[in-house]
Amino acid sequence: MSLRIPFDTVKETVRKGLINAGLSEEQAEICATIHTQSSADGVESHGLNRVPRFVEYIQKGWINLAGKPELVGAKGAVENYDGQLGIGITNALFCTDRAIALAKEHGIGCVALRNTTHWMRGGTYAWRMAEAGFAGMSWINSESCMPLWGSDVPGVGNNPFCMAIPREDGPIVLDMAMSQYAYGKLGVYRLAGKQLPYPGGFDKDGNLTSDPGAIEATMRILPAGYWKGSGMAIVLDLAAALMANGKVGTDMSASEMGSCGGCCQIFIAYDPYLFGTKEEIQEKLNRRVAAADSTHPDHEGGRVTCPGERTVAVRSRSMKEGVAVDEAIWEQVCSIAEGNLGVKDIASF
Amino acid sequence: MSLRIPFDTVKETVRKGLINAGLSEEQAEICATIHTQSSADGVESHGLNRVPRFVEYIQKGWINLAGKPELVGAKGAVENYDGQLGIGITNALFCTDRAIALAKEHGIGCVALRNTTHWMRGGTYAWRMAEAGFAGMSWINSESCMPLWGSDVPGVGNNPFCMAIPREDGPIVLDMAMSQYAYGKLGVYRLAGKQLPYPGGFDKDGNLTSDPGAIEATMRILPAGYWKGSGMAIVLDLAAALMANGKVGTDMSASEMGSCGGCCQIFIAYDPYLFGTKEEIQEKLNRRVAAADSTHPDHEGGRVTCPGERTVAVRSRSMKEGVAVDEAIWEQVCSIAEGNLGVKDIASF
Repeated sequence: MSLRIPFDTVKETVRKGLINAGLSEEQAEICATIHTQSSADGVESHGLNRVPRFVEYIQKGWINLAGKPELVGAKGAVENYDGQLGIGITNALFCTDRAIALAKEHGIGCVALRNTTHWMRGGTYAWRMAEAGFAGMSWINSESCMPLWGSDVPGVGNNPFCMAIPREDGPIVLDMAMSQYAYGKLGVYRLAGKQLPYPGGFDKDGNLTSDPGAIEATMRILPAGYWKGSGMAIVLDLAAALMANGKVGTDMSASEMGSCGGCCQIFIAYDPYLFGTKEEIQEKLNRRVAAADSTHPDHEGGRVTCPGERTVAVRSRSMKEGVAVDEAIWEQVCSIAEGNLGVKDIASF
Repeated sequence: MSLRIPFDTVKETVRKGLINAGLSEEQAEICATIHTQSSADGVESHGLNRVPRFVEYIQKGWINLAGKPELVGAKGAVENYDGQLGIGITNALFCTDRAIALAKEHGIGCVALRNTTHWMRGGTYAWRMAEAGFAGMSWINSESCMPLWGSDVPGVGNNPFCMAIPREDGPIVLDMAMSQYAYGKLGVYRLAGKQLPYPGGFDKDGNLTSDPGAIEATMRILPAGYWKGSGMAIVLDLAAALMANGKVGTDMSASEMGSCGGCCQIFIAYDPYLFGTKEEIQEKLNRRVAAADSTHPDHEGGRVTCPGERTVAVRSRSMKEGVAVDEAIWEQVCSIAEGNLGVKDIASF
């Protein structure tokens, strides 16, 4: 069941829980804000729902609360940091801001982070770039949870790829994992007794299926676009490890440090007004987005939108009516805020 | 029907044809090499098959043979060029090499090219980066030929996105358009009387179908991963126009300058040995590729490969046994080489 809880109440509850888990005041404030914003933007799977797992990882020693990004090397427009297995969110925010600073100086800026932990919602950092007025992209590598095309066992991470377009009328932000559906989404459909809108993986007989439970059983989630999502996932993995001189996905599969333990993350920012005025560039973007949004819908009452536009609407509703939270998750998070750190992660369904 | 013609014969024939079409010796040599290499790599659709259309575009005045990349502006690690509607291949090669030069100096290098023409095979430039020992990526924007998700009319370009991983044991190169199947592929299946392996678009009743002819009739090709390929296509369009201060896709749809007339192209190169030794990085890449290639296949005798690995095998066979060419296309190209420039483009089926 879904409830709506005021943003500030959600954030304050998460904040208390994270203080209980050992975060500093500053760390807790930042992480609580990001987790709550993710839920407020409609990405509960990596917002509130991940709080219990984050606490669990800290307790298991998989996240080093004292870890901070340490400069390994720098050349021109690129910096390389070791995340020291610190908090994924604070490490990634730091690197996003460094990429923006490098872009201010060099036109483009790239930060390659290694040895960090789960950054939660991938889009957080692209949204941050866009809201700071910068274009950019970011991606990660991670442990294997998706079969490569042509295989029936997990062989590559479901690595997200994000792109940011700064727009005064609302950023356009792509936040795209490489599978057609996240495992979290399969669970949502299964619990609701529904079939997926399109095939999302393979059943035990190797047939494509829209039955979420059958896919969870085989772990054969479908790469988006079949061979395309598979190919992009492995190349993102290689690129991240190469750029950051960090772990490749299979190193993480072997290390048993939870999801994304020791992963690489790449942040590239770009100054959008290098070669055109702000007016010129913004007019161009607005014109293109308006053209996309006004293309003929495929059914009566349908509406085409660009990535991120619906997010702005969801966020706006969350701020007015409260953040939508799953009741069972909310009880867990409240329990953590009350000091009960032994809460089991049920969010990974 | 498919023939195999020696590489040098194909290249020399294309070269003669391009001289007839008005290219300089140097331009013809470069373009003939790239077109032939694309066919030799198994990408006939953008190799030999595109020669008649390239000649047609020149005759229509859509390509300016005197056009060369002209520096518009530069800041730090970024350069912006105006392609002056010159030859897409030579413009893009120039910009690839500039991106590599900038990466040598700044760690990362970005060239944003505007007002250029069709670059033919997208992967050409990522392959070039990888073969020069650099990582990188490239993409373009183009006129609308694919419906956005939720629409039933073309609303976005089928923009390719490419990534390069330099590897001494063979580059890994992603070369991925945003639709599940190219129009060219639909034609190949239709002519062979075959159904597509997976649904590739919508029929006139709005149902997903694997019938290539039904999709050609509606022009409702399917974005790879449904909403995912659609979202990425529009964001690539916006990013390219923003970075290069050039046309957005819908400007090209309106301009009637052929496919990609006046488009933007982005080239980002990255020095792979900034933070790790060559040995270290190459070992990492080899280890990850080997792990991917040895994952359990989903059927007896199956084999998993990373993007680009099969290309190397196809290329090797082409060099030994000759380049596979379609007989009808080969006749066209020979005719152009003999001076008959009036050949109609049949390659766009």
